[in-house]
Amino acid sequence: MRILGIDPGLATLGYGVIDTFGSRIELVKAGAVITTPNMAEPERLISIRQQIKEILETYAPDQIAFEELFFCKNITTGMSVSAARGVTVCTCAEYTRELFEYTPMQIKSAVVGNGHADKHQVQQMVKMTLNMADIIRPDDAADAVAVAITHANTGLLREEFRMK
Amino acid sequence: MRILGIDPGLATLGYGVIDTFGSRIELVKAGAVITTPNMAEPERLISIRQQIKEILETYAPDQIAFEELFFCKNITTGMSVSAARGVTVCTCAEYTRELFEYTPMQIKSAVVGNGHADKHQVQQMVKMTLNMADIIRPDDAADAVAVAITHANTGLLREEFRMK
Repeated sequence: MRILGIDPGLATLGYGVIDTFGSRIELVKAGAVITTPNMAEPERLISIRQQIKEILETYAPDQIAFEELFFCKNITTGMSVSAARGVTVCTCAEYTRELFEYTPMQIKSAVVGNGHADKHQVQQMVKMTLNMADIIRPDDAADAVAVAITHANTGLLREEFRMK
Repeated sequence: MRILGIDPGLATLGYGVIDTFGSRIELVKAGAVITTPNMAEPERLISIRQQIKEILETYAPDQIAFEELFFCKNITTGMSVSAARGVTVCTCAEYTRELFEYTPMQIKSAVVGNGHADKHQVQQMVKMTLNMADIIRPDDAADAVAVAITHANTGLLREEFRMK
């Protein structure tokens, strides 16, 4: 089964594609969708939509797992990242309804075995799980691969999108 | 010129279409795009996108004006409404780049002449501007017509989307 993991963002959206063969996991692709602050918001949202469509067409995932957004600090940033997340979820939902969403704590628990693990521990475990020589860069791409691995490992406990 | 005004929302998105003939303004249509909480978020976002596309195809506006979102209280609500707003802005941006955005204070100033006017005063002035017998229902549709009127009256001071 092929899983696309997504760490939503406006400036940098991380994505990671993995294939699962039983309990074995292989990395297909990890990368980032970038938009720059010199573009007006509508242009950035269109660019994200187009890049996501290209990823879906290129890698044809069976299921898609998102990292859930949490904000405590800057509400303005939260609103613009949420707008980008909405465009991303909508574009993916037009492609498949096999959409799932995990909290950062669920991802840390699934990947490291500790819901309070730090970013470095998550990246190291992703590297080991995939038998890679180096950790994945940028961070957002590593986070996206982590959510894809979470979904692969979660099995019947997988988290469908909740009502909002 | 035909202007579409939009008051963004997840459960209720207000829209209003007006035609301007010099300083005269005529109402073409006011209504609301509704999604219900028994739908999962991806379904709601797809539904909003489809309904917005239908409005654009039916009324073919020349320019589109949004009411800017502000949140102080519930960040969770703010994030889901921002996601719906992102889908709406993106769908409109695919149709035209003639997009504009006004703050609630700018709308109250333009429609009532007082940036601290209350909702009732805005609705009454919208009714008078359009020579209508009654105020527009629901409130979100009246707010959307108000932002369209704001854009019509603002002329060269019109507000393009800012960088985010």
